[in-house]
Amino acid sequence: MTQIVRFKPAEDQFVWTFGGAAPVMRIDPGTVLDLYTEDCFAGKIRSEHDLVSTSCEFPFLNPQTGPFYINGAEPGDTLAVHFISIEPARNWAVSSTVPLFGALTSTHTTATLQPPLPELVWIWEIDNSEKTCTFNAKDSKFQRAFPLEPMHGTVGVAPANLEVRSALVPDAHGGNLDTPEMRTGVTCYMGVNVDGALFSLGDGHARQGEGETCGVAVECAMNTKVVVELIKGVTTLWPRIESDTHIMTTGSARPLEDAFRIAQHDMVLWLSELLGLSAMDAYQFASQAVTSPLANVCDTNYTSVAKVSKRYLGNASPYLGIHEHLRTVGSAL
Amino acid sequence: MTQIVRFKPAEDQFVWTFGGAAPVMRIDPGTVLDLYTEDCFAGKIRSEHDLVSTSCEFPFLNPQTGPFYINGAEPGDTLAVHFISIEPARNWAVSSTVPLFGALTSTHTTATLQPPLPELVWIWEIDNSEKTCTFNAKDSKFQRAFPLEPMHGTVGVAPANLEVRSALVPDAHGGNLDTPEMRTGVTCYMGVNVDGALFSLGDGHARQGEGETCGVAVECAMNTKVVVELIKGVTTLWPRIESDTHIMTTGSARPLEDAFRIAQHDMVLWLSELLGLSAMDAYQFASQAVTSPLANVCDTNYTSVAKVSKRYLGNASPYLGIHEHLRTVGSAL
Amino acid sequence: MTQIVRFKPAEDQFVWTFGGAAPVMRIDPGTVLDLYTEDCFAGKIRSEHDLVSTSCEFPFLNPQTGPFYINGAEPGDTLAVHFISIEPARNWAVSSTVPLFGALTSTHTTATLQPPLPELVWIWEIDNSEKTCTFNAKDSKFQRAFPLEPMHGTVGVAPANLEVRSALVPDAHGGNLDTPEMRTGVTCYMGVNVDGALFSLGDGHARQGEGETCGVAVECAMNTKVVVELIKGVTTLWPRIESDTHIMTTGSARPLEDAFRIAQHDMVLWLSELLGLSAMDAYQFASQAVTSPLANVCDTNYTSVAKVSKRYLGNASPYLGIHEHLRTVGSAL
Amino acid sequence: MTQIVRFKPAEDQFVWTFGGAAPVMRIDPGTVLDLYTEDCFAGKIRSEHDLVSTSCEFPFLNPQTGPFYINGAEPGDTLAVHFISIEPARNWAVSSTVPLFGALTSTHTTATLQPPLPELVWIWEIDNSEKTCTFNAKDSKFQRAFPLEPMHGTVGVAPANLEVRSALVPDAHGGNLDTPEMRTGVTCYMGVNVDGALFSLGDGHARQGEGETCGVAVECAMNTKVVVELIKGVTTLWPRIESDTHIMTTGSARPLEDAFRIAQHDMVLWLSELLGLSAMDAYQFASQAVTSPLANVCDTNYTSVAKVSKRYLGNASPYLGIHEHLRTVGSAL
Repeated sequence: MTQIVRFKPAEDQFVWTFGGAAPVMRIDPGTVLDLYTEDCFAGKIRSEHDLVSTSCEFPFLNPQTGPFYINGAEPGDTLAVHFISIEPARNWAVSSTVPLFGALTSTHTTATLQPPLPELVWIWEIDNSEKTCTFNAKDSKFQRAFPLEPMHGTVGVAPANLEVRSALVPDAHGGNLDTPEMRTGVTCYMGVNVDGALFSLGDGHARQGEGETCGVAVECAMNTKVVVELIKGVTTLWPRIESDTHIMTTGSARPLEDAFRIAQHDMVLWLSELLGLSAMDAYQFASQAVTSPLANVCDTNYTSVAKVSKRYLGNASPYLGIHEHLRTVGSAL
Repeated sequence: MTQIVRFKPAEDQFVWTFGGAAPVMRIDPGTVLDLYTEDCFAGKIRSEHDLVSTSCEFPFLNPQTGPFYINGAEPGDTLAVHFISIEPARNWAVSSTVPLFGALTSTHTTATLQPPLPELVWIWEIDNSEKTCTFNAKDSKFQRAFPLEPMHGTVGVAPANLEVRSALVPDAHGGNLDTPEMRTGVTCYMGVNVDGALFSLGDGHARQGEGETCGVAVECAMNTKVVVELIKGVTTLWPRIESDTHIMTTGSARPLEDAFRIAQHDMVLWLSELLGLSAMDAYQFASQAVTSPLANVCDTNYTSVAKVSKRYLGNASPYLGIHEHLRTVGSAL
Repeated sequence: MTQIVRFKPAEDQFVWTFGGAAPVMRIDPGTVLDLYTEDCFAGKIRSEHDLVSTSCEFPFLNPQTGPFYINGAEPGDTLAVHFISIEPARNWAVSSTVPLFGALTSTHTTATLQPPLPELVWIWEIDNSEKTCTFNAKDSKFQRAFPLEPMHGTVGVAPANLEVRSALVPDAHGGNLDTPEMRTGVTCYMGVNVDGALFSLGDGHARQGEGETCGVAVECAMNTKVVVELIKGVTTLWPRIESDTHIMTTGSARPLEDAFRIAQHDMVLWLSELLGLSAMDAYQFASQAVTSPLANVCDTNYTSVAKVSKRYLGNASPYLGIHEHLRTVGSAL
Repeated sequence: MTQIVRFKPAEDQFVWTFGGAAPVMRIDPGTVLDLYTEDCFAGKIRSEHDLVSTSCEFPFLNPQTGPFYINGAEPGDTLAVHFISIEPARNWAVSSTVPLFGALTSTHTTATLQPPLPELVWIWEIDNSEKTCTFNAKDSKFQRAFPLEPMHGTVGVAPANLEVRSALVPDAHGGNLDTPEMRTGVTCYMGVNVDGALFSLGDGHARQGEGETCGVAVECAMNTKVVVELIKGVTTLWPRIESDTHIMTTGSARPLEDAFRIAQHDMVLWLSELLGLSAMDAYQFASQAVTSPLANVCDTNYTSVAKVSKRYLGNASPYLGIHEHLRTVGSAL
């Protein structure tokens, strides 16, 4: 019978890194986690008058719910995290510009002598019944409702190589991937780097454009259900995602073409394995089959996604059908 | 009444650059061009035994049909090219690896000491009635049919700044953008840099993945109908695309994040104008609304597309409704 | 006997591209050219009140003296240009910021929503007898004399692939390399792409930091003597430079690591040939021997230089000793 | 009286990260550390038959000697580390290629489908009396002696933001900067991020080219003397270096132009402060005064150095003359 664990962190239980934090609990593979995640600003930006630069203290951003120690997980295994549901926990969400952060501004690394852009906060209205989130312009009366498309910006495990990374960083351990593909119904596969994997998630977005251009999505606390499974003895080098309709790979690096290369390279390897193709045939197949929705072009590493429709895969079954299985578990709740 | 001009270049009429070639003819705005375009290899790769390195001579790639001198076009105007139809002219198409070209290989600029990947040719079958193109693996019996999704890799005008650019280059003048978005039904807007604009197109693809990973799509000669219109006194800095459902901007540069920045920046400006938003409000709007399908990550510049659904635009009418008009012209043929 | 040709272009004789312009004259290999070059602003910025954005018209920057048709030069040959002397033609020089140009500002490709930096002009004093150029701060009384280290920003030939490139672009044909290594006493080797090579030069700098950080050096009209020689049947892929003490390779590309890769890769090949080393041994040798002074990190391509001291080369003689020969020609004048 | 502490780590005392390791000892500011550092391979590559891929275990590379807890050091302070001497501890050193690591190969992030370059080891001879290190080619009889120019690849403190970084990473905390400028006689300034700073060093190089092209220098165990000083209440954002003749800034990022931007930006700020110049005047000054020797173009971040001769600085005294002071302390030993 499925074990369901509800966890809403107390304010002092949030963690700010992948790796380096003691697990909040130990769970068995197969457990359903019913989690509360705080928004990227730790809930401190609640009106247009709360500025990130004054209300938030770096690096206390992207609070993580977790980490969870998965019993039996060891380096060389793969963790599968299936998103059963992601639901906004509030009737508002927030976006902002952050000084020297984002794609259309100079930054601390793309350093220029220009002053930063204005620091502005937008409060979005969330309508959970209509499944909309509404933008209100600051400098005009303009208003527009967008579909609610909830997702998690951060999903990850402890990194390899003895490292501890800020929850603002996306890399091979997952982390701040910021891809709209991390939505209800998908399964995310991540390689285990340390005993127990130390999985956590956070940074819910009511919706996000591809690239997260201004650096900040429609940020919202979430109530999220995931089921966590362990695939023993199967390695996964970079986070992969599976939905009912697609398989996806991710790469996180700078410059952006390297993020692209990592994701496409991993897709070529995956297609080669799933379809019994030579590497060069899989390269040709991927080149004509793939879509390439950008995830983020603002974080410390940029993230690119490679995505292939399952209708081109015949009866190939990624990760031994674990996605179908977890989908069933979720539906049965 | 609509003027229709059929043009199939003789072998010695193809041109290999944007700019620097005499126009093949002068046309009035409003003319429909019914064109034949040769494939990127100038039709020289017809079997698995024809290698690019031996059968093709650099820079005689991406043969252009054109250029057409549009009467009345002057620097500061915008050319609108609407794709009425793009139809494969053959029942086969070709893809290939090209030594030191593509995203998953070192290149002449990402120079390494490794030997190039094997040079291989894949002949794809085109079924114009079933609207499919079929991949046959070289190293196994694997076969897979994909939807036919014809598009043009190169669409452009003469560049600014007295330059002449190879037809392999994408930049602000258009050129080798290699985006799957350049498909039947869209209107492409390009700024005019020289008198007559000197528009040409070529490099048809039966289909292409986003990013054109191996550097070569499913290359095919095409019969393509476009209608060309001129928008006087309206400048366009980087190529834009409009479909019935979306508006799109493009940026071409290296590294890839700069291509992304150019496209997103232009989308912010466009949204600001269309919706009467301040720049910062448009930045926020775009950040949550945009999708970002990559075009190519293999050419001399990489190309990124920013795409926004028209359902978020209300009754805003880009370029004074020219797309709707040209769509009607095309339908009436 | 050495032929000496003096050429000072009339105002309407300057050209603004590499390729695409008729030669100003034909010369035989071995000819000494005694040239006047105008500064990058075509001499239009003469006081702190002349702004680039108002006084200059794009693309009429980097006026070229030339091109010269070198009799006998054919694709596959190498042109050797030895700098006998580079002398400021005025007692002042000029630097400036240019809106959205330079390394520490957003640009048209690294596009941001920030306003440009202030547009400022600095007039430098040149003292040709003391061999100094003097900086005067605009916002304080600060003044500092620097050594005069004259160089040419642009040295190039017509590009390959039917292209015509703006004189602002550095690439495999040379062009706007903007390296301080292009100084009196060096020989620059460039591959010939079209009959006659079509060599030109311009963009003199009284001095320049490595990287040309603000995008503009200490710009000055020059009187420059070069001797031009032709090396038949020897190809040169990217511009190389030889001084009495060093051999140098250049690479121009974006991102900057690709410019680095091109230059280092070419140095490995050159060392391999000069020293009879295997590619891997030359890779090791270069890795420990090379210095890597940046040229420009502001132009449309960035330029990186790889530099190896001749004291590590034994009696290896690059390009059959042509540098020694041209040096002798220059000294004999 | 100067305190001198000798420390040669036992094999199990080396650490592999910046941050995350307990200090080996606490020292007072002003202490001279007389240290033994192991080479980057932890001394495991001792002949041409010891391959990195089989003899070394990732991430046990770049063993650090330290970390040292500097009494009184707090976030917001600056640590000054002056290199009194760096002397090879052996009469041999080692270099190597490492699969998928280096500038002229595809890597795990610049991912291609090509096989890696051959894995080769070169043993260099060190002659400490002649101050030479000698290269022996593997594929020919070629031999060449180079000047011994000992330096440290890694110098750093614990990073900010709760992070722990592999000793292979260069960033704002220092770490694997791999610049030949980190040589005897210089003072390195680093911002303190955690109480005690937690300073360590390692990765000695008998010599290294600028860029560390193949990814590995002439790696050697070292006996190194440094004197450590604390500058209270002075922040340093990125590592800076001062020699008797130059001031230097560093930036570490990808792409390489961002590393360049960081270093140049910091130099502009530093010059502005030292010379009382406005930011724009300092930008102009730096643009004409700076040299820009690359450090590494192979590590997880690339590192660029900006360097300005003190002869242009008048009597400006960086960090209140601490370099002169520490130089005196070192000379007095």
